[in-house]
Amino acid sequence: MAQQGITPRTEDYSQWYLDVIAAGELVDKSPVRGCMVIKPHGYGIWEGIQKDLDARFKATGHVNAYFPLFIPESFLSKEADHVEGFAKECAVVTHHRLRSKEGGGVEPDPAAKLEEPLVVRPTSETIIWHMYGKWINSHRDLPLLINQWANVVRWEMRTRPFLRTAEFLWQEGHTAHATEDEATEEALRMLGVYRDFAWETLAVPVIPGMKSSTERFAGAEETYTIEAMMQNGWALQAGTSHFLGQNFARAFDVTFQTSEGTLEHVWATSWGVSTRLVGAVIMAHSDDTGLVLPPKIAPIQVVLVPIWRKEEDQERVMAFAKKVQDLIGCHVRVHLDAREKMKPGAKYFEWERKGVPLRFEVGPRDVDNNSVFCAKRTGDKKFGIAVDDDFLDRVLSELDGIQSGLLETAIARRDANTHEVDTYQAMKEKLPDGGGFFLVPWHDDAEKEREIKDDCKATIRCFPLDSQDQIEGKVCFYSGRPATHMAIFARAY
Amino acid sequence: MAQQGITPRTEDYSQWYLDVIAAGELVDKSPVRGCMVIKPHGYGIWEGIQKDLDARFKATGHVNAYFPLFIPESFLSKEADHVEGFAKECAVVTHHRLRSKEGGGVEPDPAAKLEEPLVVRPTSETIIWHMYGKWINSHRDLPLLINQWANVVRWEMRTRPFLRTAEFLWQEGHTAHATEDEATEEALRMLGVYRDFAWETLAVPVIPGMKSSTERFAGAEETYTIEAMMQNGWALQAGTSHFLGQNFARAFDVTFQTSEGTLEHVWATSWGVSTRLVGAVIMAHSDDTGLVLPPKIAPIQVVLVPIWRKEEDQERVMAFAKKVQDLIGCHVRVHLDAREKMKPGAKYFEWERKGVPLRFEVGPRDVDNNSVFCAKRTGDKKFGIAVDDDFLDRVLSELDGIQSGLLETAIARRDANTHEVDTYQAMKEKLPDGGGFFLVPWHDDAEKEREIKDDCKATIRCFPLDSQDQIEGKVCFYSGRPATHMAIFARAY
Repeated sequence: MAQQGITPRTEDYSQWYLDVIAAGELVDKSPVRGCMVIKPHGYGIWEGIQKDLDARFKATGHVNAYFPLFIPESFLSKEADHVEGFAKECAVVTHHRLRSKEGGGVEPDPAAKLEEPLVVRPTSETIIWHMYGKWINSHRDLPLLINQWANVVRWEMRTRPFLRTAEFLWQEGHTAHATEDEATEEALRMLGVYRDFAWETLAVPVIPGMKSSTERFAGAEETYTIEAMMQNGWALQAGTSHFLGQNFARAFDVTFQTSEGTLEHVWATSWGVSTRLVGAVIMAHSDDTGLVLPPKIAPIQVVLVPIWRKEEDQERVMAFAKKVQDLIGCHVRVHLDAREKMKPGAKYFEWERKGVPLRFEVGPRDVDNNSVFCAKRTGDKKFGIAVDDDFLDRVLSELDGIQSGLLETAIARRDANTHEVDTYQAMKEKLPDGGGFFLVPWHDDAEKEREIKDDCKATIRCFPLDSQDQIEGKVCFYSGRPATHMAIFARAY
Repeated sequence: MAQQGITPRTEDYSQWYLDVIAAGELVDKSPVRGCMVIKPHGYGIWEGIQKDLDARFKATGHVNAYFPLFIPESFLSKEADHVEGFAKECAVVTHHRLRSKEGGGVEPDPAAKLEEPLVVRPTSETIIWHMYGKWINSHRDLPLLINQWANVVRWEMRTRPFLRTAEFLWQEGHTAHATEDEATEEALRMLGVYRDFAWETLAVPVIPGMKSSTERFAGAEETYTIEAMMQNGWALQAGTSHFLGQNFARAFDVTFQTSEGTLEHVWATSWGVSTRLVGAVIMAHSDDTGLVLPPKIAPIQVVLVPIWRKEEDQERVMAFAKKVQDLIGCHVRVHLDAREKMKPGAKYFEWERKGVPLRFEVGPRDVDNNSVFCAKRTGDKKFGIAVDDDFLDRVLSELDGIQSGLLETAIARRDANTHEVDTYQAMKEKLPDGGGFFLVPWHDDAEKEREIKDDCKATIRCFPLDSQDQIEGKVCFYSGRPATHMAIFARAY
């Protein structure tokens, strides 16, 4: 296949994103509208995300379970806001059999029409709360802390790989608690887990905050979010955690007997992140050469490329490369690219586009010197590393350095593109050149929020948790009324 | 909730299975016909299966990817046998939106009818081979070794938890090769991976073999299987690996340029195991007290139950229990059951029914003796273990002993219930009392196979790979013609 070029970010940011994904062999279009095929290298990133997050969920006392893909149509209607939010974009199963069609092919068999259509889950609150109604009787059954890794479907008209697809992979946590305080604490705890994961593992300095009522999850009392800044200054909602109050407990009549013997509705949270995070990683770090991956999430952290010209060198070069692989293989995800009939330059090119953090070149002279020649994906000059007793430590330290370097760069970019402004005019002037986050004093008002969106496409991404102590004495940048929140406005994916 | 008793195996084997599942809190019925909810303890077993198998797949050169849940209706028809096998039992998506209904509720929106209905994947050969057509051009693209962890749906009229459900979780490997030999080798390699996994991890001594044409996968040239014997002597097909020939490559026109420059169709395999394996584990080892789990697959390998009567003992007992937990926590999945207001006896009862291999009781006297009092799920007397330098090794060795003991018991049971008979009459006489496997010389004939099934419900489970050298000079136990295979007949799930 012909190697496709990558459009520079400055020229066309959207096309750059698609080009990086194609060059990195992360996804492919599928024959099903809006559904992507996640190719091995893209799925490898998702596997890394899953493994890391799953350990964090278990460390905070959660267990995994699995609930059905299908939800009876009538369940969706039970929570009034929820059905408004999700009925409009879901896949509906109406038949359970195909039959042969005259003239060839197949069609739904009219004799196999379902009595009640089934919805492919767009999210699982309704079916899970139906089950919780069976499982929860007493305060001794609480808290119930369950997570599910699953696929969900939301019919989307305009899709973009990882960021917005009809089917996507995600995790959804659903917890039940005896008190409002406990449920709020849980929603914030999981927001913290997401925040730490994004900073530590994805090297994406997300901002944790609260959503305005406009952007709240359908059925939630409060939605918390982590918001990431992409390189074009746009925001990407990277994960949400909802305090659901007693809404679903009421809709599915889930009560528990308190220790005092009274009967009360259960308090709930739900929280999720999805394959959208893969899009966040791509957009946060990649460059005009292709994908850049933080080592902690890279499916391959080190690629070894053996090099020889004379046939007599092949054996000793390969033997040395294998020795290097074995030396670090227990602690580092290392791949030995032993493909023959492929030039080293072509291999470098491929692995750079796939975002592998470190490349070790191993030629006859390196074997003689007992060293490898190292190239970092994130620039600088190549340098030699001695294959001695300190080799593994050195490799791990290079990977750590890359990880923290990426986070520092992302923080610097985010800070440089975050503007504290006092007037709407100031934001509107700055918005066209590269977007950015605008931290502003705000008087909460859904109507005014809509006005601003219609006028300049910026929306409230969140009320950042860490900035709320700044509102003292401030007035709303739009209405001039007393500020109720500090808000971040931005263009968003 | 009232504790339900467990029906003895000898009384009603089917009910016993359901009772063990209920007592172990493995699944619950869902409001969706034929779909189960996998509860945390049941899902934990599946997570163990996934982790172990995934490592084995990667060690044999496979990578994971993800393909869409939906398959265009027309794709199913492309392989003639395949559509016959799967069109009759699938969920069909016909609409992409719901609308409000007069009088409340929602219904499929007629304005949102799909032009081409979508099938929820019953298996993914068709969509994957469509994609392979785009990815494979040259012999350099081969072999392609991809696996997918996913949910699939096959509409089943008669369901049983884990063994047969409308939606189930599974992995499906799909590989593409340049030659017939390589594809056959791959199909057998993966059969070997399944066989080793079942023996080593599940302690289930499955028999690897080949399916007769009657039981072959729809679209395969050859289907290999691992067959497990349940305690009632029935067989359970626990995994299959298919040599697909060039059938899907032809149906989706997937060719590659050979190193000689000619164009040829690609050779294929597919292979899968599912949540059915959880059912196999339950049925293979459990007893009339409840679930019995092999340590390698047990979500909890050791449960610690702290015991005290006087309040002043609580602190030191808990401190000691935590110390014990920390000593082995890095290498053993250990759970400290610190629930208060619950009697130790009730805890023992619960963990026995959940199949935890080892229980450590820790009371004030054990603290004084620096030891734990140990009960094995699989019987024998309780015994003390000193919490000294050898403690971890001792615990690991107890777990190993339980694992190998379960395998030995299962092998002995399998062998005792496997009968080599020369006549059909002999099988029919033995069949009613407890089933069993019948190893017989057989002249391959689909019509006679059906006769036998109609007559006594036994079917050919497989032609065991290890027994084919025994046919020399033998005649078919049914027809008297020269034997073509050694076959295992049995009643099957």
